Parts: sequence; C-alpha cells; structure tokens
Amino acid sequence: MSYIAPVKDMLFVMNELAGIEQLASLPGFEDATPETAQAVLEEAVKLCGDVIAPLNVEGDRNPSSWHNGEVKATPGFAEAFRQFAEGGWQGVQHPTDYDGQGLPKLIATACIEMLNAANLSFALCPLLTDGAIEALLTAGTEEQKQRYVPKLISGEWTGTMNLTEPQAGSDLALVRTRAEPQGDGTYRIFGTKIFITWGEHDMASNIVHLVLARTPGAPEGVKGISLFTVPKFLVNDDGSLGARNDVHCVSIEHKLGIKASPTAVLQFGDHDGAIGQLVGEENRGLEYMFIMMNAARFAVGMQGVAVSDRAYQKALAYAKERVQSRPVDGSAKQAVTIIHHPDVRRMLATMRSLTEASRALAYVAAAHSDIAHRHADAATRERHHAIYEFLVPVVKGWSTELSLEVTSLGVQVHGGMGFIEETGAAQYYRDARILTIYEGTTAIQANDLVGRKTVRDGGAVAKALLAEIGQTVEALGAHEGAAFDAMRTQLAQGQRALQSVVEYVVGNAKGDPNAVFAGSVPYLKLAGIVLGGWQMARAMLIAAGKHAEDPAFYEAKIATAQFFAQHVLPQAGALEVSIVTAKGGEGVFALAEDQF
Amino acid sequence: MSYIAPVKDMLFVMNELAGIEQLASLPGFEDATPETAQAVLEEAVKLCGDVIAPLNVEGDRNPSSWHNGEVKATPGFAEAFRQFAEGGWQGVQHPTDYDGQGLPKLIATACIEMLNAANLSFALCPLLTDGAIEALLTAGTEEQKQRYVPKLISGEWTGTMNLTEPQAGSDLALVRTRAEPQGDGTYRIFGTKIFITWGEHDMASNIVHLVLARTPGAPEGVKGISLFTVPKFLVNDDGSLGARNDVHCVSIEHKLGIKASPTAVLQFGDHDGAIGQLVGEENRGLEYMFIMMNAARFAVGMQGVAVSDRAYQKALAYAKERVQSRPVDGSAKQAVTIIHHPDVRRMLATMRSLTEASRALAYVAAAHSDIAHRHADAATRERHHAIYEFLVPVVKGWSTELSLEVTSLGVQVHGGMGFIEETGAAQYYRDARILTIYEGTTAIQANDLVGRKTVRDGGAVAKALLAEIGQTVEALGAHEGAAFDAMRTQLAQGQRALQSVVEYVVGNAKGDPNAVFAGSVPYLKLAGIVLGGWQMARAMLIAAGKHAEDPAFYEAKIATAQFFAQHVLPQAGALEVSIVTAKGGEGVFALAEDQF
Repeated sequence: MSYIAPVKDMLFVMNELAGIEQLASLPGFEDATPETAQAVLEEAVKLCGDVIAPLNVEGDRNPSSWHNGEVKATPGFAEAFRQFAEGGWQGVQHPTDYDGQGLPKLIATACIEMLNAANLSFALCPLLTDGAIEALLTAGTEEQKQRYVPKLISGEWTGTMNLTEPQAGSDLALVRTRAEPQGDGTYRIFGTKIFITWGEHDMASNIVHLVLARTPGAPEGVKGISLFTVPKFLVNDDGSLGARNDVHCVSIEHKLGIKASPTAVLQFGDHDGAIGQLVGEENRGLEYMFIMMNAARFAVGMQGVAVSDRAYQKALAYAKERVQSRPVDGSAKQAVTIIHHPDVRRMLATMRSLTEASRALAYVAAAHSDIAHRHADAATRERHHAIYEFLVPVVKGWSTELSLEVTSLGVQVHGGMGFIEETGAAQYYRDARILTIYEGTTAIQANDLVGRKTVRDGGAVAKALLAEIGQTVEALGAHEGAAFDAMRTQLAQGQRALQSVVEYVVGNAKGDPNAVFAGSVPYLKLAGIVLGGWQMARAMLIAAGKHAEDPAFYEAKIATAQFFAQHVLPQAGALEVSIVTAKGGEGVFALAEDQF
Repeated sequence: MSYIAPVKDMLFVMNELAGIEQLASLPGFEDATPETAQAVLEEAVKLCGDVIAPLNVEGDRNPSSWHNGEVKATPGFAEAFRQFAEGGWQGVQHPTDYDGQGLPKLIATACIEMLNAANLSFALCPLLTDGAIEALLTAGTEEQKQRYVPKLISGEWTGTMNLTEPQAGSDLALVRTRAEPQGDGTYRIFGTKIFITWGEHDMASNIVHLVLARTPGAPEGVKGISLFTVPKFLVNDDGSLGARNDVHCVSIEHKLGIKASPTAVLQFGDHDGAIGQLVGEENRGLEYMFIMMNAARFAVGMQGVAVSDRAYQKALAYAKERVQSRPVDGSAKQAVTIIHHPDVRRMLATMRSLTEASRALAYVAAAHSDIAHRHADAATRERHHAIYEFLVPVVKGWSTELSLEVTSLGVQVHGGMGFIEETGAAQYYRDARILTIYEGTTAIQANDLVGRKTVRDGGAVAKALLAEIGQTVEALGAHEGAAFDAMRTQLAQGQRALQSVVEYVVGNAKGDPNAVFAGSVPYLKLAGIVLGGWQMARAMLIAAGKHAEDPAFYEAKIATAQFFAQHVLPQAGALEVSIVTAKGGEGVFALAEDQF
C-alpha cells in the first residue's frame, strides 16, 4: 500500500491548535490563509502519494551505490527529485526575495511531514538543503546568498552539513579539519568528514557543502571553529559551474535503514585543498551551524511523526484485513479481523494517539516560530521565540523516541509477517532507528532542554507553559463524561509532575549536575508526554465545541485523546518518581565505572 | 568483540536466588550440586565463546541459503553443530534413559542463555529439537521414543515444530493440513506449513518434523487437531534411514534478523503424501503441542535475556573506549570516555539491571519446574508446577519485550556508529525483533497470563507470590541506606499495584472481558517489573549478608538493584493507573473500528 496523507487531521491541527488564521495577520503572511494551506497540502498529497511514496521500498531494496567516487541514487529518485524541484517544494518556507514561496513554517511543516512519511531517505536531501539555505540567509554575505540560495531553492543544487569527523561526533570541540587562507579571500580545506547525508549523488548538478573547519591559530575547542561553503563544482561569477573542487566521496556507509540516502565519507583536500569561502565571521561557525541544526532538529522531529504515521497506516490496514481467532467477548462464533482483538486495538490506539500528539506539538511549535519571525512587536517575537526554542528539543527528542515505539508496534501488529522484509513494516522499524541519533542524540536534546532551555531562564518558559496547561485543565472541568474525566485527572497529574521536575532541575543543576543530567532524558520524555497530552486536551475541547459540524470526526478526536489520557499520561507520574521522589539520579551513579 | 558469559552472575542467581542446593536433594538430581553446575557452565563458556559466538556476524552477512529444495547453513555452522552435539549439549536436561545427562532445567537454562547470547540463529536449532524431545517423551509410544529421542539427543537428527499455516498463525483453530490414515498405522499428510524454523538444513542427517494436522471427520477448531511425526527421511526398524519422505522446503524467508536460521515453507504431500505417524491420541494434538510450546516459550524468554546481555556487553565496551566531550560536573578539562556521561551511564544501568532482573526471574522459574518434576511430595510438586506455569508467560513476554528496549539502547549508546551495520549493535536490534512474536506474541502470553494463569484459579498463585513479595519488603526494612530505602518503598508500591491489578483482572474478566484483555499486556509488563524487582530485592538482601566475602561484587549487586528500584519499579504505578484507576480498558474501545 502507498501512503495517504491525513490531510483532514493536519488541517485540524493547523487551523484549530496552531492557529493558522492568526499567522495570516502577520506582515508578509497575508496570503497564508487556511484556504492557501489546504490548497498547498492537496498539491503535496499528489506528489508525495503518487511519485515519492512508491519509491520508498525500491530505495530500501536497491540503495544508492558508490563507484569510483561517484554515487548513483536509487533508480527513479533523480526524476522524482526533478518533479519535486520543479513544483517549487524546496522553497515553500524560504523568502520570495530568493525565489522561495515565503509561506509560514507551519505550512512547510505539514509538507515536510508528508514528504518524510512518503520516503524518509528521499526527504533527507531537501531537509539538509533547507539547513544550508537557513545558514546562508543568516550568516552569508549578500553575494553568497545571491550565488547559492536561488539555485538551492530551485533544486538545481542541493546542500549538506559537514560537522562530524571520526573523532568528533557529539563533541564538536574535537573538530580537526583545517582551513588555510589563500590571501585572495578563499581558503583551502583539508580534512575528513563522515556521516554526510546526501554528501554525494547524481540528482543535482552541484552540491554546496557547508563545512566546519579551523583556521590557523584559532582557539581550541568550539570557539575556534569557522563555517565555510565548499561547492562540489566551483561557481563562476556568472553562476555557471567551474572546475571540480578537491572534495571527494571516498565511500558510503552500509546502514541499518534509510538505505537510499547515501551517507558519505568526504575527503577534503586530497590534492591541493578544497577551495572554500568563509561564511560570516571567523570562529563563529558553531553559532551559525546551530541555525542549521535547529532547523534540522525540528525537521528530524517531523521525521519521527511522519514515519510513525506511515507505520500506523500500514498496521491499521493489515489489522482490518487479517482474520484470526474469535473475539474474547464471545460476540462472534467465527474468527474476526484482528482489529477486534483488545491488544491489537490497544496497539493501534497507542500508535494513533502518539502520532497525533507529536504532530500537534510540532505544528504548534512551528506556529510559534512563525510568530517569532514575523510579529510586529519585538516583545511578542521574543516570547514566541523562547517558547519555540524550548519546544525544539522536545519535538526532536520525544517525537523520534516515540517513532521507535510506534514502528516497533507496527511490526508487532503484523505478527510473524512483520518480521518478513517483503511485508514492509520492518523497513519503518529500521529507518526510524537513526532518528534518535542524528542531528543530536536524545541525550544531546535533553542536555539542551535542561541547560539552555530550562536552567538558563530559571524555568520561566517552562512555568509559563505549565500555567497554560493549568488553564486547559480548568476548561476540561466544564465537560462531563469518561473521556473528559480521564483527561482532566491525568493532565492535572501530569502538570504537577512536570512542575515538580522543572523545579528540581532548576534547583539542582548547579549543585548536583550529574544527578540532574542523569534525569535529563526522563525529563524530556515527561515534557513530551505532558505537552503532547495538553495538545490532545485542547483538541478535545475544540471537538466538543464543534461536535455537531462533523460528529464522527470530532468523536474520534475525543476518543483518541481519552486513550492518550488513560495510557500515556500516567507515565508522567512514574517519570517524576524516578527523577525526584526516588532520587534516581543517585542510582545512575551508584555503580562506579569499574563495577560495570 | 566476542561474548564472555557472565558465569559469576549466573552462579550467583543459581546458588542464591534459585536454590540449586535444594534441587540436589531431589530424587535423580543427586549429582546436580553447585560444583557440577559450575563445571558445566565453564565447559559451556568455551564452546559458546570460542566456537559459536564468532559465527554470529558471519550468519548475518552470509545467511542460510535455499537452492532447489535444499538449504545450506552458513559456512561453519555445521561444524559448530557437530561440536555442540558431540559435547552432549543437546541432552543436558533430558533423561539419562535416552542418553541425556539428566541435569536440572536450572543448569540447562544457564547453558541455553549462553548458547543464545553467542548466536541466536544457531541456538534456535537445539531449541526446537528440545521441544520435539519433550513432546515425544510426553505423548509418544515407547517405540517412538526409542526410535527418535536418542538420535535427537545425540544431535544426529534435529527436530521442528510445524504449527503455522498461511491462514493459521496465532489461531490454530484454522489449521487445514490433512492426515489420511493408510490402514497400516501410518498416515499420509497433505498441506503447507510456514515459518518452520530450521525446517530444512544440512547440519544433520535427518529432521523429525512434528506436525499438526486433521484426520478425516475430526471436529472443527482446535479440538480436531492431531500431532504427527513426519521425518524428512523415513526410519527403518533398525534405525537406519530409508526413503526420502514427501515433505519439501519450497522456499525460505527473507527476514529482518536471525538470518542464519532458515525459516522454511514446507510442502507436505506434493506427490503421494508425506508419511507420518500419530503421536499420542487423535485430536489431542494441541495439548501435546502445548508441551513443546511451553518449553519453547520459556526458552524464547531466555533468548530475550541472552540477546540483552550480549547487547549490553557490546555497548559497555564501546562506552569505556569512546572518548567524547567533557564531563558535565567539571571533573575533567578534557573529553572523557562516554561512560562518564550521565545519560550513557543511565542507559548502561538500564540495560544491566533489566538483564539481571529478567535472568533472575527466569532461573527461579526453572528451579520451580525442577521441583515440580522431581519432588517426592505430590502437593509440593503441584504448588511449584502452578508457580512455574504462572511465570512462563511472564518470562516469555517480559524478557522479550525488554530485549527490544535493551537492544535499542545498545544501538543508542553507539551513537551514529550504532546505525552502521559493521558495528554489530544493529544485528542484536534486528535479531531481537522476532522474540516478542514467535512461540506466541506478547498478547498471546498476556491472554494466557490472564485467562489460564490468573482467572482460572481466582488469582491464587498470584496472591501467594504477592504475599512472598510482602515478606521481602519487610526484610528490606532491617537495612539502612539509600539503596534499601529506595527498594523498600518502590517494591512495596509495586506490590500494591500488582495486587490491585490482579484483583481487577479476577473480578472483571467475566463481566468485561474486552476491558480486562485490553489491559492484559500492561498487566504482563507490570507482573514482570514487580516479580523481577522482587528478585533484585532478594539479591540485595543476600548481598548485604555476604558483603564481606566479596565487597566489590556484592556492592555492585546492591547498586544495580537500587537503580532498578528507582528507574524501573516506578513504572508499576503508572501501569496500575492505566489498567485500574484510569479505566484504560474503556479507552481502548472508545474508538470504534470504523473510526480508526
């Protein structure tokens, strides 16, 4: 089966939870009405469903391949990429000044979800290009912007991020790649970069590598890293392609999943040095790279939502078709489709509710980003920026951790067939496994959440969100019935649990950093559960108000939220116990290194 | 790196938690002393570490292959199997009357753990043979036992279980394979069986298939299924091999993991019918098959423990070697090995404590099985049998679900390298994924736990175990310090949570089966967490008593238990909330089939 984008659910979140109408009142977003959003999504459905999703299995069976420094993408990918580029999809959220469409990140986020659900491997190429565009727009000179950005937006060229080296993974302080100034404004780059996604391929005529390297005499550590553009082919002043640059793909990795996306080892400067240009100021490369990283982290969070939805769709279709065993309640004498069996139903409801909650949280975050960029009032911009920054590690960390659970349940629903590769459920399980690792592992996200997003402002943003959750709990009190009762009780307990952990984190990060950071991933998961549950609660309230307009749709929203309240939110309490009450941070260090 | 069996940990569990000394007082087990156990384990270490573990990666890269109805095992497997067979390892737990060693299941369990940790794919062949031996010993005629069992124990032949058909997976009522009596005491078998592990291979001279089929006029459903022996080569009266039987391997599956173990589609009776012999009485096949299944389910639980330990060993080695980033507590100015980072430490402690808890619970279950088989007193036998029966679905379901988490953490500890196949961590992640599916999915185990193991006796066994846990909680009160405090508090809460769920299950299974079965997997996980935590608590108490004998070892036991108390046991409360307080069973059915 192919992928059918859940446009109605997406529009519900965009319209009702993320407030797209508000965005249309922001300067520059006048055209971004709900109608525009719907029209864009309906176009994206066609491309993703008809062209890109069908290549997903092929990419797994026939991965991109390396020969003599060149990489061939899976057959069909280059043509699909051409259609993607010609449709203007790379430019959805980028400025019209450089030939983008200038639409809100919220709309782009829904498109990105579709593209990734259709084909994670394929979608990685635009994902990295987006990051390169963001970095150039923020830190590049006008000349650099003009030279690169329109070509990246048109899809004639693609972009990459070159951070990792064999000895420098999560720890960029250890970067060793050198950049030697040539006196003519250019640099020659020498070094080896690994794990470069779409670092070499045949889908575009040029590849713009954004590369972290050290200039001579730069300070040690992360404060001595600069950012460079290193195109595969040098670019002449008229925009035409010049000589082949001295950057070469020496191999690609043999991976567990996302096999169609080539993961390159790039060698810079095997001959005379790869010619690069400084982006922004010397030694500020990490700062610029974080612009790319932040965009990419959010997008990887969307990959988690996307692959979860794809896995859910597949498992659901199987569960509605596969006949096995009589129902436990005696309601039929014959074997029934397995969706009637309680545990299959529980697994599907888990997959569905986690996917919906993580989608809602991510779209809401995207809307905060849009307001942070476009609102006329500086204080409003700042407030929304702070919320977006708080949410990015949660969206990245929580959505991707969920995707491991959801894709695993997807295999489980299929029973023995799930373990057979031809079924396809296993591919999602394999593909998803990178999501909690790249663009910063879950632990890196959790460190960010603790350090820069919670402790630095004394928990101010977290507490503001907690206060809003409290208002939602109150609003739930106006409604009756099992679903609202369950949500009110469980969201209130979740809110208290998150409050307790935020206070613990703020209060102890300086005094007992090991204990606090030992609880950082549990804190991130707790934040995801409570913030995601909050969105589910908001959805319930809206569904109750609009029920008569579309009873079946809104009842399903309420029922899905009820399940989340009963089966997911209770985990918040357990996480709080581990982190705070039971002093779990101590337990992490109870065993000395040599006792392991 | 290869696999180093944790013999000291295994012996600690066997001696202190499972009470091997008691077993040596049982009739027939006089030789099964702690010294014998140690000697056997030390022999097993050599075979598993030196011969079988090194083939694990090779089996993944160069899986068993099918050609023209024949299956070639991975190079090296046949020779390793010869060594396994010649060492007498197939017979460890089988009766001396048929050339087995007659040792307790407890000792065999440790050997099985090692064999599986060394190589899951390889170990599956003996695992299935064990099941065939058990079924023949229970239901076969003396002639059948003499004909097959010594050859299976010697490893000259191997055995298989043939249950599944394309339309009959979890639901054996749908089995269609036919057995037509020939009037000479034999039957001709016609049908297709799928997912037959080691159903065809070149490691032994014959394969004894145990096959479920229906005789003419048999009742519909599971009450009309009989069990047959169908050897690949017919066996002459003198034990020599006769004609090739009409059972053929038409293909093997392309799987996510355990690739070295061929998963066969077997066609019975494409020509004149495959000649088979009835085992036991007609129409009682399912009952006999459950004997095999029960043994196999326990063994699959051990596969979960085993692959978890293997993944833990690999991740630990990497974490002690990989240098990345400075410590968060400022204790070093330079990057340190990643085991110093709190979240890596937390992941390793999670892997370690889950592995130890699931091992302890399984070994304790094995000891109950031994007493159930050998004790002189019938009432004692019955009591221990009931406990063993209660624990089998928990060992199978919980240990294997854990193995998904543990092998996933194993990938995560490796960061980006974990996603590269050459690293090896991904293989455990892929291999483990079948464990929650075959020999009965987790839901099937949970149904068994609810229906036959909890509701049928009104929760009597569960409550007896809960009372014992209560005694352990009291004993913890005699000790001071953070570790004992944490365990006392969390185990007490876990015990209350399990008690509440057992009462709920017993009280509502008849009246509201959908809700109860919707909570069955959460109940199984809760039972695993609390029963596993109980074993960790027992280990702490013993460690406190023996501390002076080996301080480092016993302190590590206490610290590991502390971690389990702080990070795993709190989940018990959340599961109880989902199942009972929040009425999660209702939420599972809140969404109608057509609303999904």
